[in-house]
Amino acid sequence: MTGTVHLVGSGPGDPELLTVKAKRLIEEGDVVLHDKLPGPEIIDSIPEERREDVGKRAGGERTSQAEINDRLVELAREGKQVVRLKGGDPFVFGRGGEEMEYLRERGIEVEVVPGISSAIAAPAVFGIPATHREHASSVSFVTGHEDPTKEDSAIDWGALAATGGTIVVLMGVGKLPDYTRALREAGMDPETPVALIERGTWPEGRAVAGTLETIVSVRDEEGIEPPAVTVIGGVAGLYAGSEGNGSEDPLAGAEGEP
Amino acid sequence: MTGTVHLVGSGPGDPELLTVKAKRLIEEGDVVLHDKLPGPEIIDSIPEERREDVGKRAGGERTSQAEINDRLVELAREGKQVVRLKGGDPFVFGRGGEEMEYLRERGIEVEVVPGISSAIAAPAVFGIPATHREHASSVSFVTGHEDPTKEDSAIDWGALAATGGTIVVLMGVGKLPDYTRALREAGMDPETPVALIERGTWPEGRAVAGTLETIVSVRDEEGIEPPAVTVIGGVAGLYAGSEGNGSEDPLAGAEGEP
Repeated sequence: MTGTVHLVGSGPGDPELLTVKAKRLIEEGDVVLHDKLPGPEIIDSIPEERREDVGKRAGGERTSQAEINDRLVELAREGKQVVRLKGGDPFVFGRGGEEMEYLRERGIEVEVVPGISSAIAAPAVFGIPATHREHASSVSFVTGHEDPTKEDSAIDWGALAATGGTIVVLMGVGKLPDYTRALREAGMDPETPVALIERGTWPEGRAVAGTLETIVSVRDEEGIEPPAVTVIGGVAGLYAGSEGNGSEDPLAGAEGEP
Repeated sequence: MTGTVHLVGSGPGDPELLTVKAKRLIEEGDVVLHDKLPGPEIIDSIPEERREDVGKRAGGERTSQAEINDRLVELAREGKQVVRLKGGDPFVFGRGGEEMEYLRERGIEVEVVPGISSAIAAPAVFGIPATHREHASSVSFVTGHEDPTKEDSAIDWGALAATGGTIVVLMGVGKLPDYTRALREAGMDPETPVALIERGTWPEGRAVAGTLETIVSVRDEEGIEPPAVTVIGGVAGLYAGSEGNGSEDPLAGAEGEP
């Protein structure tokens, strides 16, 4: 009997933002494969003998995607109920699509369990809605780290600017100067509000705000570091300096892996 | 003592895709204000004496947003712990941003509890990832029903096409012919894969697939009806005719309100 692989999103890090189903599968699964992104609180809640950290190898090097894929196949063929736990949602910049394809091509049953994406949750707990009738009819998620091996690797920032909707950049701290410049050069108003939310919903989570023109200086002055989510558009102007829900709920703000 | 309003996303309808926090708040709150979008299973789990349906009034007419806002204020001023339960995520086309602003302007504490958006979950359970390294570096959510009172009401479909990313249209069954035409006219390849997911994750949920050119005929032949989510882009080509997780999990596919 071949086992099933459950591709499970852990949400943005707060154990209370796990879905009921994710919590059940974590408790019932034979083995949970994870990296650091689900956050310490969720990972520490899993008994050590039932979890495997596939984020790092002994030498400190990362486990390759090929090794993770092979391990998932191996465990499923041993008849195990395997939980592949991923930060945020498994299908939002999380390579979940690739893992699903690899497994299905080998005849292994895959169940996808969506999770809350930090692209929506991290801004939300700081009072920034992804969409708003007065500010944005659409919201686009992009990653600040693109696959450099892709033939057509450039995100079309001009097209994103032209949508007029909210733009949320995941893993976009390092390249903030590049894409804010690209958006200004594409004609986006330099006064467009921008918010940076660091560690979204961890206890030490915080948000800072500026504009397309000033946000790089704000980042540097405040020392904002990854993981963080960047929100660009009128909705970012709704950030009122509140402390979010992060003060009560220790969460992780990271999601997906480039 | 003024109460708190918890703006809670119920996810796409499966009670197991509620977050642990949403489930707790539904159980502990003094009163739950909801419409039909959270889906029958979740709504029926709340004792009748603790819930108020603000989706419909006695005469069959909809409760206006202004009435909902006033009721939230009234209940909070009575000192109640109020749960405002919304389908999907409260900040994705759900008017949660407006409700938050209205309440905060009146000094009422608001806590936002993100939920799983059907924009990601409905395609996911049918094996369609929102992003994929080989197919899409971004994903954009739009609504098929725009606020007609907005001055600049037109979604820029050309800009969305130009992003090269996945486009997910919520509430987009009726206007499918209009926006698929707009995307083709903007130069999007008519062979671009398109999937329609009806009632995402309800037991009767189903998906159909076609291209930007054929999907309207497919919709008509199959009799696809709202609520449904449209996915446009290479990732829709990963739909392999599976039955999704919907066979096990009765969910609702709807989200937000135009």
